[in-house]
Amino acid sequence: MATLCRPTVHVPEHVITMEQTLDLARSVHADHPQLDLALRLIRNTGVAKRHIVRPIEETLRHPGLEQRNAVYEAEAKARIPAVVRAALDDAQLRPENVDLIIFVSCTGFLMPSLTAWMINSMGFRTDTIQLPIAQLGCAAGGAAVNRAHDFCTAYPDANALIVSCEFCSLCYQPSDLEVGNLLSNGLFGDGVGAAVVRGRGGTGVDLQRNASYIIPQTEDWIMYDVKATGFHFKLDRRVPGTMEPLAPSLKRLAQVHGWDAAALDFYIIHAGGPRILDDLSKYLGVPAEAFRFSRATLTEYGNIASAVVLDALRRLFDENGTADAAKGMLAGFGPGITAEISIGSWVSEPATP
Amino acid sequence: MATLCRPTVHVPEHVITMEQTLDLARSVHADHPQLDLALRLIRNTGVAKRHIVRPIEETLRHPGLEQRNAVYEAEAKARIPAVVRAALDDAQLRPENVDLIIFVSCTGFLMPSLTAWMINSMGFRTDTIQLPIAQLGCAAGGAAVNRAHDFCTAYPDANALIVSCEFCSLCYQPSDLEVGNLLSNGLFGDGVGAAVVRGRGGTGVDLQRNASYIIPQTEDWIMYDVKATGFHFKLDRRVPGTMEPLAPSLKRLAQVHGWDAAALDFYIIHAGGPRILDDLSKYLGVPAEAFRFSRATLTEYGNIASAVVLDALRRLFDENGTADAAKGMLAGFGPGITAEISIGSWVSEPATP
Repeated sequence: MATLCRPTVHVPEHVITMEQTLDLARSVHADHPQLDLALRLIRNTGVAKRHIVRPIEETLRHPGLEQRNAVYEAEAKARIPAVVRAALDDAQLRPENVDLIIFVSCTGFLMPSLTAWMINSMGFRTDTIQLPIAQLGCAAGGAAVNRAHDFCTAYPDANALIVSCEFCSLCYQPSDLEVGNLLSNGLFGDGVGAAVVRGRGGTGVDLQRNASYIIPQTEDWIMYDVKATGFHFKLDRRVPGTMEPLAPSLKRLAQVHGWDAAALDFYIIHAGGPRILDDLSKYLGVPAEAFRFSRATLTEYGNIASAVVLDALRRLFDENGTADAAKGMLAGFGPGITAEISIGSWVSEPATP
Repeated sequence: MATLCRPTVHVPEHVITMEQTLDLARSVHADHPQLDLALRLIRNTGVAKRHIVRPIEETLRHPGLEQRNAVYEAEAKARIPAVVRAALDDAQLRPENVDLIIFVSCTGFLMPSLTAWMINSMGFRTDTIQLPIAQLGCAAGGAAVNRAHDFCTAYPDANALIVSCEFCSLCYQPSDLEVGNLLSNGLFGDGVGAAVVRGRGGTGVDLQRNASYIIPQTEDWIMYDVKATGFHFKLDRRVPGTMEPLAPSLKRLAQVHGWDAAALDFYIIHAGGPRILDDLSKYLGVPAEAFRFSRATLTEYGNIASAVVLDALRRLFDENGTADAAKGMLAGFGPGITAEISIGSWVSEPATP
């Protein structure tokens, strides 16, 4: 068995509200022919505020890829350790108990990955396996959970640490003026999340089955253009409509497990945007309230990419979890268009006397 | 059980010989204060020739990161399918039998990864799991084998496809003038490799145990600086001496399996450079001849990064493999400094009547 334990999520100290975002769009893009549409789309996200690693004035200036990536590295190193230590504490593990570190991040690029730095600076064993993933975008949160599950299935005594480090604000590109870019500038936020998957013991989601799915011929719907100025995010207008073709893959996974995707006890869903959540609840046949954790993440932090599912799950823990054996689903969505889905049931370890 | 089947490796049609490399270094760096040292180091690599995706004149001109990455994508899409189909054929599988694609490449960056394109264009199932790895450098070949092994350990009926796509020539940086850069310009080559790990059946290496190891506090010895011009490779002068601290991790893995690392029947070792191979044979206590497959890859293709181990293993297959139950070791090395090591024994499937 593999138990996904309580995640810890950190959001940075610089806050930008929806009103500030709208004001900025109005002043920066005053003469944009589709400004009104962009403002409407931003308002529709329901993102009340986002947290970013640098003050907004600095974020809006592009200092060049080299400097941007250096900021990414410095901010990651400053923020990751406390998040990881808290996640380990919550799982009642020490760094030396970790066999695999899955590090997911699509908003900066380092080689070697920060896994090497973590091992060197945080007390992990020198034989800790490193699995850095940079190319699954927002789906990487779900992918990390699934690969950790697979690993603990292969090695039942093992423990895997998941770290998601997403500083979407460092991918802001002033020269990108598509409506999809203007929307993204109002949708994405920054966050660092971590969680442990324990092979034995632990309180949280007992992961039981997982699956991937790619919607055919959509590989250019969410993508990066890689340029001298860094990653340029491209968002096709058809993306918000992808839950209709994706929902059957979620239903199928539940079904092969003998469960009904419409009748689970909890849902941890990537909050790509409001329509993603609205449509998925419609196509799965579940009430909007079932996605309240994801909606709270979207409202309070924005789309924090691969860290969304960790934050939504953290909110379930903050409600004191749920009843033992309660059935749930976790799903990340991202470029591909890819879904990484898992199902499992709530398990709580007996309190130690 | 998990069997690593026969790899297929493609090297491009543009060839540059050692003499051409030396001539180029002499003309391009005529006034470099350490030219003689660089020439000596290049000569010492023993790399007789390399194969690159574009003619050398074009390779030496840096067209900018955007254009470079576009070349990477075009060349990858042109070359990967035939390699993958051959690897599948050798494993007697069809695309729809593949459950996981592990795609390793550190010489270009795409999001989504080429896994999405492969699924869409080559007949893989829409529920194929994608595992793209960009940040393990040359160690990613060994890492791919190990993660495929883990996956088939978790799901014994599953099959994993490994693809390594390395166009090191597209990371040539004319402005990088350290001696380590001049050496690298004469050491690295391009190649595309693929191999299948079958959960059941197949002829090849029955993977039995794997391990990772990182040499403490060496994370900046092999690294990329990420700049507007792309990835800038940095090679510390201490790297060639890393086999002394790494060798014990290889011995340890053999030992926990009840084997003696000095007395195995075959060795598939990342050919980072000649001293890597010389030193490792010394510290493991094995004759130089034991690393003949890796040495042949180095001589004929140069260091083709994560594809080296696939090519060295391909050469063992080209010798008609080895005796059933023969014991072997496979090891990739790269940034971290990280080793990804596995051990297994030769298994051959009975010929079908």
